[in-house]
Amino acid sequence: MGKFVRVDMSTLKVITEQVPEKYRLLGGRGLTSNLVADEVDPLCHPLGPANKVVFAPGIVTGTAAPSSGRISVGAKSPLTGGIKESNAGTPFSQKLARLGIKALVFEGLPADPKKRYLLELTAGGERLVEAGDLAGKGLEDTFAWLARKYPGQAYAGVGPAGETGLSMAGVCFNDLENRPSRYSGRGGLGAVLGRKGIKAIVVDDSGGPGVPLSQPEIFAGGARKVAEALGQHGVTKPGGALNSYGTAVLINLLNEVGGLPTRNFSSGVFEGAGKISGETLAATIKKRGGKGLTGHRCHTGCPIGCSNVYPRPNGQEHASCVEYESDWALGANCGIDNLDHIAEMIRMCNDYGIDTIETGVTLGVAMEAGLAKFGDGNRAIELVKEIGRNTPLGRILGNGAAFTGRAFGVLRVPTVKGQGMPAYEPRSVKGIGVTFVTSPMGADHTAGYTIASEITGVGGKTDPLSPKDKVGLSRNFQVATAFIDASGYCLFIAFAIIDIPSGFVGVVETCNGVLGTAWTMDDVTRIGQEILRTEIAFNRKAGFSAADDRPPEFMRREKLPPHGSVFDISDKDLDEVLNF
Amino acid sequence: MGKFVRVDMSTLKVITEQVPEKYRLLGGRGLTSNLVADEVDPLCHPLGPANKVVFAPGIVTGTAAPSSGRISVGAKSPLTGGIKESNAGTPFSQKLARLGIKALVFEGLPADPKKRYLLELTAGGERLVEAGDLAGKGLEDTFAWLARKYPGQAYAGVGPAGETGLSMAGVCFNDLENRPSRYSGRGGLGAVLGRKGIKAIVVDDSGGPGVPLSQPEIFAGGARKVAEALGQHGVTKPGGALNSYGTAVLINLLNEVGGLPTRNFSSGVFEGAGKISGETLAATIKKRGGKGLTGHRCHTGCPIGCSNVYPRPNGQEHASCVEYESDWALGANCGIDNLDHIAEMIRMCNDYGIDTIETGVTLGVAMEAGLAKFGDGNRAIELVKEIGRNTPLGRILGNGAAFTGRAFGVLRVPTVKGQGMPAYEPRSVKGIGVTFVTSPMGADHTAGYTIASEITGVGGKTDPLSPKDKVGLSRNFQVATAFIDASGYCLFIAFAIIDIPSGFVGVVETCNGVLGTAWTMDDVTRIGQEILRTEIAFNRKAGFSAADDRPPEFMRREKLPPHGSVFDISDKDLDEVLNF
Repeated sequence: MGKFVRVDMSTLKVITEQVPEKYRLLGGRGLTSNLVADEVDPLCHPLGPANKVVFAPGIVTGTAAPSSGRISVGAKSPLTGGIKESNAGTPFSQKLARLGIKALVFEGLPADPKKRYLLELTAGGERLVEAGDLAGKGLEDTFAWLARKYPGQAYAGVGPAGETGLSMAGVCFNDLENRPSRYSGRGGLGAVLGRKGIKAIVVDDSGGPGVPLSQPEIFAGGARKVAEALGQHGVTKPGGALNSYGTAVLINLLNEVGGLPTRNFSSGVFEGAGKISGETLAATIKKRGGKGLTGHRCHTGCPIGCSNVYPRPNGQEHASCVEYESDWALGANCGIDNLDHIAEMIRMCNDYGIDTIETGVTLGVAMEAGLAKFGDGNRAIELVKEIGRNTPLGRILGNGAAFTGRAFGVLRVPTVKGQGMPAYEPRSVKGIGVTFVTSPMGADHTAGYTIASEITGVGGKTDPLSPKDKVGLSRNFQVATAFIDASGYCLFIAFAIIDIPSGFVGVVETCNGVLGTAWTMDDVTRIGQEILRTEIAFNRKAGFSAADDRPPEFMRREKLPPHGSVFDISDKDLDEVLNF
Repeated sequence: MGKFVRVDMSTLKVITEQVPEKYRLLGGRGLTSNLVADEVDPLCHPLGPANKVVFAPGIVTGTAAPSSGRISVGAKSPLTGGIKESNAGTPFSQKLARLGIKALVFEGLPADPKKRYLLELTAGGERLVEAGDLAGKGLEDTFAWLARKYPGQAYAGVGPAGETGLSMAGVCFNDLENRPSRYSGRGGLGAVLGRKGIKAIVVDDSGGPGVPLSQPEIFAGGARKVAEALGQHGVTKPGGALNSYGTAVLINLLNEVGGLPTRNFSSGVFEGAGKISGETLAATIKKRGGKGLTGHRCHTGCPIGCSNVYPRPNGQEHASCVEYESDWALGANCGIDNLDHIAEMIRMCNDYGIDTIETGVTLGVAMEAGLAKFGDGNRAIELVKEIGRNTPLGRILGNGAAFTGRAFGVLRVPTVKGQGMPAYEPRSVKGIGVTFVTSPMGADHTAGYTIASEITGVGGKTDPLSPKDKVGLSRNFQVATAFIDASGYCLFIAFAIIDIPSGFVGVVETCNGVLGTAWTMDDVTRIGQEILRTEIAFNRKAGFSAADDRPPEFMRREKLPPHGSVFDISDKDLDEVLNF
């Protein structure tokens, strides 16, 4: 049945409770969003005592289901002011699930805001201990310290950015080699956790109950179907696109369709794309050798392996991982075509505990404001250092792209609901634009990844430049994604299970196997819609209205090269996307 | 009949047009809010080409009606994101009205954002000229230059803060001695004007048509009634409270009821109140002599004379004017009890072109964040200098209290709709709290000045600490104020005309005298409601909802000394305030 663990930072007490019946069938995003909606005042200060941070592994996380090691983190976001869920792939999720913890909830604020705490989770119980030595430490040092003190366990933590409440601070998790590299990065959840005084969480699942299967045979059949689909599909199979080149394989694809946002969303084409593409990345890793690695996986049981370890010219490890969004944000979006500069910024983001996407979008806005020239990688690195140094300029940049735009009076600010746009130009790839604009999460590619259809042709190819039928496309992806984010599966299974229907059946069967339910594909839609409705209702109470489901004004007006296109989905259509 | 003057900064063309019939009976706030609502996209970027800045003298401005020299400035606010009107008393309004200009509208954006322009308005026509020499100049130098080059005229301008788009930048007007001291200060209207490239406006009304009276006898009778009321009432009469001590007479009154926000709204009592009170201020001015002056008036025809000129210890002029809000914001709210420090910050605000209220509220938040100790006037002056120097810290502070709170993760941020609260504690003086929370202008004391009743007992004394009947009280004041802000009269006439009904009749009669209408007191309510409805409708389209008509969370939770009170007007009641 599992349990909830609640940590009250006001009293420094930890209590456990049985999972209430209403939450029994929920997991991942379904659980974080429902707990936040039920327990957090939508008008509260995101960094104040009334906000809560919820960690929840997915429904099948901790089982043998492939690519299912996701953990959801949820709270009211200091970046958007609305509800937030951000998930990551990490052994932490699997160990948490195997300890029988369905949700871990942090509440209140400590009496002394200078103190730092570490939460130990074991089969023997939960213990909150002071961790003053870790105060202000970067995540490289923090995770190294954790790996020494708690060998073989899994780790979560916040960097200095989270401790000081910056809106781009993420919650960091370990990968299989204990790097601080797997992030619930978006929306400033690390600031909420950090301001509650939590510096780190360690999980030891030895002796834990594991994840019980209500219907083991149904589960096994479903897991096999998912594994087969992943193994067959060109995007997800071993030696396939993601495994060979990582997600950065998208750089060339997006550039070719004029949809790679360049120099702060002033063009859809980057002349330096070839220098930062997935193909160049993989070749560079291969050429430099040493500690470099493609096909890296973030948790055990993932056959996709889309991650990588990027080496320095001498083969020493530099950063993990150079994925598409980070590569683009700190690269094309800043006019930077040097992978070593990009890797250095990714390493810094991982160490400070900040979201690479928000960092890159912020740098683009800062460059537009004249703080650096587009393309100047060395100066960009200096700007990121300001965040680490916590200078006034760092406080501006560290609070994100919308904040930086306001600070310097910039007119071209690519954000929705206060969150920086990811690596797809809404004027060239309109389905993902609809997702950016309407998702309750703010501009978020994972919330309804129409790129699968618009760029890679999964589930039938649609024309990225056409506004036609993009409302329905985004809606379907957003609903299905809400379910997948609850299941614990990585979103990348979508490439395979959309094209190979038995794979999707397998996903539902594994959930049934764990929960003892008899869900069908209809339940996927029902559950996805329920989650979205819950999130939207929270946002309305937090003050969001139709005006928040709109693109930045400049995307309606400024024609984007190379197509001369604007974002031409009508307000009326936008209002229909999640109106169910 | 008057005319509209439109300045298109995109084409650098000035055109005049007849006043369309639908705007014929509007003036001041009625005209600015209707033009902004009709012509500005509520979702536009406040500093972008789609925003407009509208200047409009009131209905009776430019006539012999006493205390009627107000000018309204309106736009979409970069501070609140909603519609904004902010008015000031200045000869500029009178000269503009006498030139027959009912509204002056600035549109578009100049092709070269580095260029600066000056608009000359004369009976012979309008001329937009380049004014590169004035770029980046403080308003002291700017107004001195204008007074030399355009002697005997009236001036408006923006300081460096407006030119660089800071959200606390105001639009500055001259007083009778050409000081840059009369401000449409709130809501960042100076940033909208400054980013349009307008550095200054000069008005020469010689040879102008004046303000024609449709019904001269009705006008004369009305003006006499207003003058009589002002001359009789204890607050407004010569030698009365405002004339003798200035508005700072409120320091002691508010402190006595525990309603003087102190050290960033953490107490309602300031132990140093006596050192910055109106009585001490007047005594200091008298003692120092020299250029010091109480009973100063901001425009001809005002019998109240609430302004002052504060001298240095040697009698040389230091700053004008040390009014209540500035005195409090830069004083009690920062724990500062030194009038010379306060005067120096007022002088700096006037020179940089920033709102003294927003500056003081921002300093309070910055002190809470640890940037200075409460009470440290010298360090506060250094912080204000950062704004003038345009440093990263200055960009944070110069964008206001809410922005500064977010930058540094402060939990106690006394703002509504992004605008800093003026000098009245909502937990101790609940009617004005209702106004702060519900006014479409954001936290604004002038929008519905219930202090008249709650503190000075005008129109019947109400208990400031009681939540009882405060919804209706605030509603009535907000509606009447919207009318007064349209009329061109200074809000301070309210003290007299509420207690002396014939005075209010006189106000309506002077409007009828100018416009040829037959308005009664019922029309005051109708017109006030129409203006508010127009503003609220704009704000809804801009994304405001009921969630924006709420106090900061901490005021619901933190008990304020000395009464231990919280803001206890229910959400339901707040939603009824302007629901007509």
